Amino acid sequence: SDAKKIAVIAGDGIGPEVIAEAEKVLKRTEELFGYKFELEYGLFGGIAIDERGTPLPEDTLAICQKADAVLLGAVGGPKWDTNPKELRPETGLLGIRKALGLYANIRPAVIFDCLKEASTLKPEVLEGTDLIVVRELTGGIYFGDKLRREGPNGQEAVDTCTYSVKEVERIARSAFEIAKTRKKKVASVDKANVLETSRLWRETVIRVAADYPDVELEHVLVDNCAMQLLRRPSSFDVIVTENMFGDILSDEAAMLTGSIGMLSSASLGEGSFGLYEPIHGSAPDIAGKGVANPIATILSVALMFRLTFGYHEAAEAVEKAVKEVLDAGHRTWDIATDKSAAIGTGAMGDLIVAAI
Amino acid sequence: SDAKKIAVIAGDGIGPEVIAEAEKVLKRTEELFGYKFELEYGLFGGIAIDERGTPLPEDTLAICQKADAVLLGAVGGPKWDTNPKELRPETGLLGIRKALGLYANIRPAVIFDCLKEASTLKPEVLEGTDLIVVRELTGGIYFGDKLRREGPNGQEAVDTCTYSVKEVERIARSAFEIAKTRKKKVASVDKANVLETSRLWRETVIRVAADYPDVELEHVLVDNCAMQLLRRPSSFDVIVTENMFGDILSDEAAMLTGSIGMLSSASLGEGSFGLYEPIHGSAPDIAGKGVANPIATILSVALMFRLTFGYHEAAEAVEKAVKEVLDAGHRTWDIATDKSAAIGTGAMGDLIVAAI
Ligand SMILES: CC(C)[C@H](C(=O)O)[C@@H](O)C(=O)O
Ligand SMILES: CC(C)[C@H](C(=O)O)[C@@H](O)C(=O)O
Repeated sequence: SDAKKIAVIAGDGIGPEVIAEAEKVLKRTEELFGYKFELEYGLFGGIAIDERGTPLPEDTLAICQKADAVLLGAVGGPKWDTNPKELRPETGLLGIRKALGLYANIRPAVIFDCLKEASTLKPEVLEGTDLIVVRELTGGIYFGDKLRREGPNGQEAVDTCTYSVKEVERIARSAFEIAKTRKKKVASVDKANVLETSRLWRETVIRVAADYPDVELEHVLVDNCAMQLLRRPSSFDVIVTENMFGDILSDEAAMLTGSIGMLSSASLGEGSFGLYEPIHGSAPDIAGKGVANPIATILSVALMFRLTFGYHEAAEAVEKAVKEVLDAGHRTWDIATDKSAAIGTGAMGDLIVAAI
Repeated sequence: SDAKKIAVIAGDGIGPEVIAEAEKVLKRTEELFGYKFELEYGLFGGIAIDERGTPLPEDTLAICQKADAVLLGAVGGPKWDTNPKELRPETGLLGIRKALGLYANIRPAVIFDCLKEASTLKPEVLEGTDLIVVRELTGGIYFGDKLRREGPNGQEAVDTCTYSVKEVERIARSAFEIAKTRKKKVASVDKANVLETSRLWRETVIRVAADYPDVELEHVLVDNCAMQLLRRPSSFDVIVTENMFGDILSDEAAMLTGSIGMLSSASLGEGSFGLYEPIHGSAPDIAGKGVANPIATILSVALMFRLTFGYHEAAEAVEKAVKEVLDAGHRTWDIATDKSAAIGTGAMGDLIVAAI
C-alpha cells in the first residue's frame, strides 16, 4: 500500500493533548488530499519509565524504525528529574536520536506577525527575521566518553567532545542544501580560536562550501553569535553548528521570536525519515487542563509533510490554516493578550482543521 | 613603599587609546586621594607577535607577576587571525589567564540609564537589570587535551572537558561571596542532564551553597539560561558557570544591556591580584582615529580600585564621574544618537577626569 506509517509518541505532560490535535489535522488531510496515514503508538519518556521501567522501550524504538516518520509530543517533568540517569526522559531522547541516526536538527525561528509584540525584542529589530538553526544532533560532547576519576587534585569529571570529518560534512551539506532553497546564506558557528573540534569543523565547512558557490558562507564565533542574534537577527538565514552550541543558540533564537509555543522542529537522518516535534516542553503545570497551544505540533505535521513526504500542497494548506485562524484573532492562553478570551487546545485544533 | 604596582598592557587596535584615558584617571586619583601607582608597561597580543614573535613575551608575564594588578586594553585583529595557533593573540590571552591563575572572570552586565534605548530589548524588560556573570576561566574544554587522530570513520578531532571538585568549589565560593554583597541570589548554570562535568559542577555548587544559607540558589540548564536572559534579565543577580558556557552567556548578557562599549571586567585569582579589562574588542576599524569609547576601560580601573586595592571611595568617585558626564549628555561616537555631536576618546577621558 502507499500508506505512510507514522509512529506517534505522545509522551508526557501536555504531549497527549497537543498530539490529539495534530491527529485531527492528519485525518483531515487524508480526507482532503486522499493521503493514507497508518498511525502506530509508542510509549516514551516519563510515562515509559513509569509503565515499563525505561524511557525508550524496545517496542517503541521498533515502531519508529518501521515508520516513515515519527511525531513526538513532549517528554519529561519534575517527577523524573531526580531519577538516576538510565531512568530519565532525556536519556530516552538522546537514545532515540542516536538509534534512529537523526543527525540534523532543523529549528526554524520565525516571527508570527500577530505575535511580534510577544517578543522581548523591539519589533523593528525583529522585522524580517526568518532563520533556521541546523544543529548537529548525534555527535560532540553529548555522546563522547564521560567519566569520574581521581585526578592529581582529587575527584574530577571528564566529558569528551569528538567530531569526525564525515560527521561535519554531512551536517554542513544539510545546511547548504537548505540555504539553497532560501536566502542562500550560511553562518557556520564554532569556537575555532580555542577548540580543535571547531578547527576541524571550520576546515570541513569551507571544503563543503566549495560545492555551493551560490551560497554565501560566514564564520561566526559562538560567543559573537550569541550577541549577533540579539543585534541583527534578521541578517541570518541558515545557522549551522555543533550539538552543544546548537542547543544553546537554537533556544536563544527561539526565545527572541517571542513565539516559543508556535515553533516546530525536525530531526533528520539519511534519506527522508524524520522525527517531528514542537520545541516547547511538556509543561507539566498546565497538563490535563485543555489549555495547551497545539500550533507548534500542528506545524510539526506540516514540516513532516514537506520534508519527509514531499506533500507540499498539504504543508502549505496547514500553514495557511494556522495563519488564518491566528489572523482571525483566535488565541490559546499562552499567546492571548486578553487571557479571558483565550480558547482551549481542542477548540484551536478544530478551528485550524476547519480552515484547512 | 606603599605604591601599588600596575602592569599596563595596551595591546592592539584601540587598546593604546583607551588605556591612555585610564592612565589619566589613575593620575588624577593619585592627586586627589594620595595614592601612589607605579606603572610598568608590557607588550602583549598582536603587537608582541610582530615585535617579539610571541603573543605573551616572558618579560610581559614577569611584569604582571610582580604587579598588584594588570590593566589590559584589548588584543587581536584580522592581521593575526590566520596565523598558526602559537602566533595568535588568543593564545596569549589563554596563556596569561593560566599563568596568572585567573580562575574567576567577573562580568557585570548593567544598564546605563541614558543608554537604555540602545538595547535591542524593550526598555520595560530591561528595567532593573543588574547582573554579574561569574565565569570559570582556567578550566573546562578550553584547557583540556586536544588532538587529531584517525578514527574508525577517518579523521577526527577531540577536545576534552575536565573539572575537578576543587576548581568548581573555588569558583562557586567566588559567586556566593559576591552574591552576599548584592541581591543574594545565585543562578548556577550547567547541562547536568547531559554532561558528567555538569553533574559534578551541580553537586559541588550544592555543597558550597550550604555555607551560604542566606543566599538563594537556583540551577538553570544552559539552554534555558540563554532563553531566560532574554525573558527575565532583571530576575538574575549572580550567574555562575563554567568556562565555555560563561563565554557565551556573558556575551549574550552584555549585548542585551545595549552598553557593550561601557562594560568592564575583572579576572581574579587567589588573593587580591586581578586583571582588569574592558569587554569590548580591539576594534581595528576605528583604531588610531581617536573616536573609541574609553568608558569601559575607565570603569575597569574603578573595578580594580574596588576589588584589588580596596579603594572604595575612589572607585565610587570614578563611577560617579562617568555617570555625571553621561548625564550631562556627552557621548562618544558608538553611543551617540546624534553622531555629529560625538566627542573623541581624549575629550571623553578629560571630562571624566575633571568630574572626579
Ligand atoms: C533534554 C535535552 C537532553 C535536550 C538537548 O539538550 O538536546 C533538549 O534541550 C533539546 O534541545 O532537545
Ligand atoms: C578570544 C577568546 C579566546 C576569549 C575566550 O573565549 O575566552 C574571548 O572570547 C573572551 O571571552 O575573553
